[in-house]
Amino acid sequence: MIIKRLFGRSFDQIRPFKIVKKFTSNSDASILISMGNTVVLCNANILDSVPDFMKGTNSPWITAEYSMLPSSTKVRMTREAVVGKQSGRTHEIQRLIGRSLRAAFDMKYSGEFTIKVDCDVLQADGGTRCASITGAYLAIVDILPVLYKKYSIRYDKKFEKIAAISVGLINNDILLDMDYKEDSNCDVDMNVVMDANGNFIEIQVTGEKIKFNKEKFDLMLSAAGHGILKLISYY
Amino acid sequence: MIIKRLFGRSFDQIRPFKIVKKFTSNSDASILISMGNTVVLCNANILDSVPDFMKGTNSPWITAEYSMLPSSTKVRMTREAVVGKQSGRTHEIQRLIGRSLRAAFDMKYSGEFTIKVDCDVLQADGGTRCASITGAYLAIVDILPVLYKKYSIRYDKKFEKIAAISVGLINNDILLDMDYKEDSNCDVDMNVVMDANGNFIEIQVTGEKIKFNKEKFDLMLSAAGHGILKLISYY
Amino acid sequence: MIIKRLFGRSFDQIRPFKIVKKFTSNSDASILISMGNTVVLCNANILDSVPDFMKGTNSPWITAEYSMLPSSTKVRMTREAVVGKQSGRTHEIQRLIGRSLRAAFDMKYSGEFTIKVDCDVLQADGGTRCASITGAYLAIVDILPVLYKKYSIRYDKKFEKIAAISVGLINNDILLDMDYKEDSNCDVDMNVVMDANGNFIEIQVTGEKIKFNKEKFDLMLSAAGHGILKLISYY
Amino acid sequence: MIIKRLFGRSFDQIRPFKIVKKFTSNSDASILISMGNTVVLCNANILDSVPDFMKGTNSPWITAEYSMLPSSTKVRMTREAVVGKQSGRTHEIQRLIGRSLRAAFDMKYSGEFTIKVDCDVLQADGGTRCASITGAYLAIVDILPVLYKKYSIRYDKKFEKIAAISVGLINNDILLDMDYKEDSNCDVDMNVVMDANGNFIEIQVTGEKIKFNKEKFDLMLSAAGHGILKLISYY
Amino acid sequence: MIIKRLFGRSFDQIRPFKIVKKFTSNSDASILISMGNTVVLCNANILDSVPDFMKGTNSPWITAEYSMLPSSTKVRMTREAVVGKQSGRTHEIQRLIGRSLRAAFDMKYSGEFTIKVDCDVLQADGGTRCASITGAYLAIVDILPVLYKKYSIRYDKKFEKIAAISVGLINNDILLDMDYKEDSNCDVDMNVVMDANGNFIEIQVTGEKIKFNKEKFDLMLSAAGHGILKLISYY
Amino acid sequence: MIIKRLFGRSFDQIRPFKIVKKFTSNSDASILISMGNTVVLCNANILDSVPDFMKGTNSPWITAEYSMLPSSTKVRMTREAVVGKQSGRTHEIQRLIGRSLRAAFDMKYSGEFTIKVDCDVLQADGGTRCASITGAYLAIVDILPVLYKKYSIRYDKKFEKIAAISVGLINNDILLDMDYKEDSNCDVDMNVVMDANGNFIEIQVTGEKIKFNKEKFDLMLSAAGHGILKLISYY
Repeated sequence: MIIKRLFGRSFDQIRPFKIVKKFTSNSDASILISMGNTVVLCNANILDSVPDFMKGTNSPWITAEYSMLPSSTKVRMTREAVVGKQSGRTHEIQRLIGRSLRAAFDMKYSGEFTIKVDCDVLQADGGTRCASITGAYLAIVDILPVLYKKYSIRYDKKFEKIAAISVGLINNDILLDMDYKEDSNCDVDMNVVMDANGNFIEIQVTGEKIKFNKEKFDLMLSAAGHGILKLISYY
Repeated sequence: MIIKRLFGRSFDQIRPFKIVKKFTSNSDASILISMGNTVVLCNANILDSVPDFMKGTNSPWITAEYSMLPSSTKVRMTREAVVGKQSGRTHEIQRLIGRSLRAAFDMKYSGEFTIKVDCDVLQADGGTRCASITGAYLAIVDILPVLYKKYSIRYDKKFEKIAAISVGLINNDILLDMDYKEDSNCDVDMNVVMDANGNFIEIQVTGEKIKFNKEKFDLMLSAAGHGILKLISYY
Repeated sequence: MIIKRLFGRSFDQIRPFKIVKKFTSNSDASILISMGNTVVLCNANILDSVPDFMKGTNSPWITAEYSMLPSSTKVRMTREAVVGKQSGRTHEIQRLIGRSLRAAFDMKYSGEFTIKVDCDVLQADGGTRCASITGAYLAIVDILPVLYKKYSIRYDKKFEKIAAISVGLINNDILLDMDYKEDSNCDVDMNVVMDANGNFIEIQVTGEKIKFNKEKFDLMLSAAGHGILKLISYY
Repeated sequence: MIIKRLFGRSFDQIRPFKIVKKFTSNSDASILISMGNTVVLCNANILDSVPDFMKGTNSPWITAEYSMLPSSTKVRMTREAVVGKQSGRTHEIQRLIGRSLRAAFDMKYSGEFTIKVDCDVLQADGGTRCASITGAYLAIVDILPVLYKKYSIRYDKKFEKIAAISVGLINNDILLDMDYKEDSNCDVDMNVVMDANGNFIEIQVTGEKIKFNKEKFDLMLSAAGHGILKLISYY
Repeated sequence: MIIKRLFGRSFDQIRPFKIVKKFTSNSDASILISMGNTVVLCNANILDSVPDFMKGTNSPWITAEYSMLPSSTKVRMTREAVVGKQSGRTHEIQRLIGRSLRAAFDMKYSGEFTIKVDCDVLQADGGTRCASITGAYLAIVDILPVLYKKYSIRYDKKFEKIAAISVGLINNDILLDMDYKEDSNCDVDMNVVMDANGNFIEIQVTGEKIKFNKEKFDLMLSAAGHGILKLISYY
Repeated sequence: MIIKRLFGRSFDQIRPFKIVKKFTSNSDASILISMGNTVVLCNANILDSVPDFMKGTNSPWITAEYSMLPSSTKVRMTREAVVGKQSGRTHEIQRLIGRSLRAAFDMKYSGEFTIKVDCDVLQADGGTRCASITGAYLAIVDILPVLYKKYSIRYDKKFEKIAAISVGLINNDILLDMDYKEDSNCDVDMNVVMDANGNFIEIQVTGEKIKFNKEKFDLMLSAAGHGILKLISYY
């Protein structure tokens, strides 16, 4: 079967990628990230205190919140503030973003403060969690000078660049960086967070419709790795 | 006392005003409105059904939801979906937006559907409710051709253009289209929704710090009227 | 069109007005206010502390809660404690009451305590928000001696008397102090809070069915003013 | 120990008892009941449908809701609608009221409708659940003619009169119809619902501070019985 | 009418009774109690602090939480954590358990800590509240040595053994320790908490379908007393 | 570093594994699964309807709910029904269980019903999500005869056996089937769901403290595979 991909791209090509820095002005850092038609606003802020379980550790806490604007999808979603709670999917995604950021930025023993990144999806076309991780990573990179300015905390330590991408398996074909339509139809769905050295932070693979063997897994992971290095090459 | 206003504007001048149409692509209409540093994304969608109280009226329902992104303000706000409910202020504002839109677009007897406008504040610097009303109005204007295309509902009827603006009284001086800092310090706070013919939809005036007499009221309302006509002249 | 009004009153006449003081005994002050068939119990209490945002200001906080008993209306309403949240309308009204009271009683720098007024509607027939404001005002007047007794805070400063009233426009006729049936049918709906000197605290006008011009507005506001002075003459 | 009781009453005397019928006008029946300083507004309404579990039974459902106004107590309580849920105590009491009413009015096979009684405590001084049961009973008595008028359902069947009362044990002394202060200090607390023939609907006894034996129990129950017959003699 | 009881037992016989101690290992005490097919896991834990209203009393607080696993019943129940609140029945039962435990263990002036017992119903066949009380009582008995070990608090004072049981009235027959089917059909439902000396902690009787007189009450209470002494004889 | 493991097991050994079938009697299937000191009750029930998004597909829906009893952990957890919502972790886990079960049992086109599995953790010592998946799988296996009996749906189709297990990386050592203490200290945490043929349903790996390369990943995945085959060999 031949799948016609948007933007005329091949199976192993990522979507057009764009970053707008300082998209809004009230946060300590603000990144508008686009991966194809998926657009996420990632705003990072430094908060003065840490959660209770971090008190006394002399270390910061890094965390994230994720939300889709009700009108970010083709069929309007109900607003979570109206429902009165965040969905299970929202919880799952924002926990993943937070974990990835904490792995990317090892800031142990640099004082007690919180970096909170809000990932608000303005337009959704698949891969919003990966775009959120990459965008949130870039927002924290932009917050480092603010940390120095506000708290005199200087990070000479080099943090390896990271990025996240999805890979799907459809009819035994591998599709890198799926859009919504591809994602809805894929048999196996993988999300990978990796750094510039090829070290992994998170791998999640789900056999949505079929199970998968080690060989397919390795091909998918390899495609993800290439995609992530491509993304990282842009910043 | 002389107040130095941002953008070097005079007391009776509105802030720089900008509209981006089709800012996002998944909604039936999408307007990004800026009034100075206040930026609101107003997305409108046509939904198939009406609320129970409208059933059998053969008339559409127009309504709005309002939300501030947690990172839209200088000091990050708590996300309402995390708190588990919308604040009183949010309720008050989205009711005002909905009322204004229903007054602007009298669509009685044109069939049962809902127009829902999401007003999500991306960046807040005062006057977010007024920017939301104006932006939501413009989003519905852009939805009219969609109504025709999707539902064969044509509006030959002319809807008068409307807009909304705030006026403040500080130390007996009148300030048109206040930013956040001005708004926080004003003695009397007025919000006006008016059409191009000078007919009013809503007037709300609050003596935040002092009471006000009819004379001051008339001056404020007059300033609001000029501001609204100026806004309307831009579209 | 000729509208037949309840109580045989004319267009510019307010409904029978009644105040019962010390209606209940456990609050610091308790007012049962009736405006026609609308009956609201306004109980005021002095609480020891202030909200966080008032701490350190050496000033009290005045606030209100509003609620309709489920059986106060002809068609029984669902109890908000059962739904699990206050409605948007409730939020809007109790914010209005609180604002009006803070404007009526300028108690800056007299110490940190809270005056909380509970406005519980026992019987509803239109104008409950106005009756709540007037009743809450009178409850705070009755709390002043308690403040002196409990906290040795004496208010020699004279607080101007205030009251609130609604005015409607139906078929170009002005109706003062509307009951529920009139309110449901009016084209334009105005609520005014004013003091005995004719200075305003809050004006809210909404074109429910039609827009309105400045001339109509002035006539309505003038009628409201007369009604408020009439109310104030009773206490 | 000699306890001085309010209203100069003896240990086995109930408090002054008063009923106001048609206290409010929008409900199908409305009773304001006072037992000493405890005042409860009991409004009953006929609703058209029954809960799911009653559908197809051709029988009505009788139920109650209970609430204390925040300002009904000496120390103001938090409003349950603000907390976002009803307390355990509220649940317990409104379930007791509903059970008692269903036992008092056996309306099996007279059609599917709901009688809902709202018991809103305006002023609390102990015994609010008993006053609510008695008041709610009287409200349903007043609703019977409405049932006939609205639904042509005539109850020729005689319903035995019922009432409810509390009894306490303090220092081995029995106190009938306790007020708040007595209730807070009692060792054993009993609530009884009984009809005019001495048949019981509900007995609840709790050893708050001490356990109690059968002998004491019998004395308490006997006092409760006398109190209930006294109450019933008033209507 | 002759009722055939499960386990071939007579009207005044309790169901097979079984206790498993230390059923789980992470709590300070853990009891799995079975009364016939009703199985409740009662885990007790010592918590370091007391609720605000107990602070400064130098006395512990004893409290309980009750929950039915969704799959404990023949027809699966909705999970309360999914609904977002505990039901009225849950509130009522856990308040009863807590009251009974505080009456059973008078620990006044032995320091400020909380004993919290979780009663989680694994399998439900009637009488879950009574099984919970008995099981919770036994869990606290097992916690006493832990109190000594962790807090050096030794209870030389003897606490009378207690237990709880239900009795029903069906067609004028008395049924001790009802299972679910019996409970659903009974006319009068009684729950009793009593100690080994025949002193009562709590008696609750409800005329579900019929009223009951003193004579029937006495017979039911007597049957309950025998059942409780039988239960207590097992431990 | 040499880690001393509980039960005297080696790095690549799973914990003692035990299954009790029909642990409770009211569900359609009931499995009590133990992996070392982790004990989960997995009850499966057949419900008559499907969620809206499955209506018209002629296919069943398989889903799960996960919960930890408050007293299942060494430090008592707050009950989610008391908090009023399920935590992010709970959402994440129950979504994983449901996905895994739907992949294990492909029941497409066999009619519209729901299989709901409740996984309630009675005792927690690490690996509760894996034990839940394995236990839930076994509960559905036991439900197949019930499906035939109740709905005449016979599954001749063979479903491959599945199981789930965790693997950790601590100080470069691989630990199969971690208990709580090991889990809290591991650098990389992997959860794998696999079938008897070595085909995968889900792989989730998180670099909690360090990143990991492909070589380590392969070693961990291989250990997981061995563990899962061992588990499956037991049933």
